[in-house]
Amino acid sequence: MATSTFRVNVLLKEGVLDVQGKAIESSLPELGVSSISNVRVGKLIEFSFDHEGSSLTDEEQTKLTKVCHELFSNPVIESYTLTEVK
Amino acid sequence: MATSTFRVNVLLKEGVLDVQGKAIESSLPELGVSSISNVRVGKLIEFSFDHEGSSLTDEEQTKLTKVCHELFSNPVIESYTLTEVK
Repeated sequence: MATSTFRVNVLLKEGVLDVQGKAIESSLPELGVSSISNVRVGKLIEFSFDHEGSSLTDEEQTKLTKVCHELFSNPVIESYTLTEVK
Repeated sequence: MATSTFRVNVLLKEGVLDVQGKAIESSLPELGVSSISNVRVGKLIEFSFDHEGSSLTDEEQTKLTKVCHELFSNPVIESYTLTEVK
């Protein structure tokens, strides 16, 4: 049994209005910053995952995909990337 | 003038109660998942940054640090990592 740490980056899909990003952009001039644009705000989720061997089985991979789809993100408006944290 | 994309990962510091993470953990059994633990939820912020040359000047670096400290994170309870997205 091994435990790995994974990170999921969740961002709104292109074309979906990013209200938090716009709010940050509108605050930047107050800090005297004009060189930042295209601000997008998403979620970052880190977790430990117990698995059998050194690499993931198909079943374990399916379980991770299911959790990313059904719990961590809303696939209608969000996209995610799952990466192992070394 | 060059434009780079940066990503800031913001997570609650160790010891700070992560309510969203706990909520996710308590939902996992409903999905039949028992192999995920230590869930931590943070913010992910991506933005474009205009700078003079190919690498950042000290002044530009200072500006990024200021924005991370004062706008993107709350240094009292959160830590952040700033990385350039290739």
